[in-house]
Amino acid sequence: MSKKTVELFYDVVSPYTWFAFEVLLRYQNRWNINLKLRPFFLGGLNAGTGNKPPIMVPAKAKYMPIDVLRLGKYFDVPVKNPKDPVALLFTKGTLIPQRFLTAIDMTCPQFLGNVSRELWMRAWNRDEDITEPASLTQAAKLAGLSEKQIAEILPRINSNDVKERLKQTTQEALDLGAFGSPTIVAHVDGKKEWVFGSDRFPILADLLGEKWEGPLPGVSSKL
Amino acid sequence: MSKKTVELFYDVVSPYTWFAFEVLLRYQNRWNINLKLRPFFLGGLNAGTGNKPPIMVPAKAKYMPIDVLRLGKYFDVPVKNPKDPVALLFTKGTLIPQRFLTAIDMTCPQFLGNVSRELWMRAWNRDEDITEPASLTQAAKLAGLSEKQIAEILPRINSNDVKERLKQTTQEALDLGAFGSPTIVAHVDGKKEWVFGSDRFPILADLLGEKWEGPLPGVSSKL
Repeated sequence: MSKKTVELFYDVVSPYTWFAFEVLLRYQNRWNINLKLRPFFLGGLNAGTGNKPPIMVPAKAKYMPIDVLRLGKYFDVPVKNPKDPVALLFTKGTLIPQRFLTAIDMTCPQFLGNVSRELWMRAWNRDEDITEPASLTQAAKLAGLSEKQIAEILPRINSNDVKERLKQTTQEALDLGAFGSPTIVAHVDGKKEWVFGSDRFPILADLLGEKWEGPLPGVSSKL
Repeated sequence: MSKKTVELFYDVVSPYTWFAFEVLLRYQNRWNINLKLRPFFLGGLNAGTGNKPPIMVPAKAKYMPIDVLRLGKYFDVPVKNPKDPVALLFTKGTLIPQRFLTAIDMTCPQFLGNVSRELWMRAWNRDEDITEPASLTQAAKLAGLSEKQIAEILPRINSNDVKERLKQTTQEALDLGAFGSPTIVAHVDGKKEWVFGSDRFPILADLLGEKWEGPLPGVSSKL
């Protein structure tokens, strides 16, 4: 049976997206899917759709950190809330880290998953900066890139081809009709269908003709 | 073991809430919970929190009907999309049906679940009006109320005590920090914890110390 392609449009600004990322990596062999990681820019998507991040409604901003920790336990992902989410989400934003991931994707895509996880670990576990070159360097090192590779890739975040590629991926998501992160696209029988969020895995499994066995396939859930 | 209380704050305007309603009814004996149905007014909650319904973002409005049908299949709830959701959600709204449910709750609460389901069937399965007295009468009849009971209850939707009670329930949800429907409150060891949405049942089960067995407990899921 040929593999079905699943695309994950993601931005490391979103802790919910981290859950979807880990689940898809856990399932990629189990489900016989070809997983394509597609770093895009959520800020650009929001600008294009007029959607607003949940944190802008005060009651949601209060609920979200509780929800994130509960889901972290459910998905077995070591998420923690940053002290200053506004800085992470708005003041600093993720244009630079998403450009860095795009540069990784264009240069040595085999490291893209590991670097993405390291960025989430920095932002959503250790409350560290993910916009400074030193921080990106450290993430790439932990993900297994050599100093030589990092020295080649890092300057590319300011290059037009990387900027253009990130714009194109974001535009592709907009054209699809997406309005948030994660957006997960299933290619089935020549058709594209997509779901939004980290709470549609039973639906995604159904679209793929596969079985959803919970967040930790092969293991009894912690919850 | 004494029963744990679970409160469902709900408005029949929301198809997602219908899923949560059916799931909680299916689980109420299985989980040994005392389920309290709390009709509130989502329009009032939105006014109080500044939250906006997803339909106001065009990309979400396009995705939602697809999402609703997929989830209807997953939850085994016969939801269909109305032809004119804007009329249901905004022009007509649910102040009248939520007042009717409040009057039922204050008069013959044993019928509250059945009447709620009939209203969802009308709005989100048969695309029928739920604001006209004839429609409310029909829903109540199908739910098992006598003509005499209906004749007593229907005029009460304009009474101050019903209006006041609906306002109070909505205010209670606001005070809790809620921002949408469904809001599900678990009372555990003298503490109140709540979740938002129909996609947090594994979390709710964990809060209650119970097991989530999918949308159809005791039956293999259709998905």
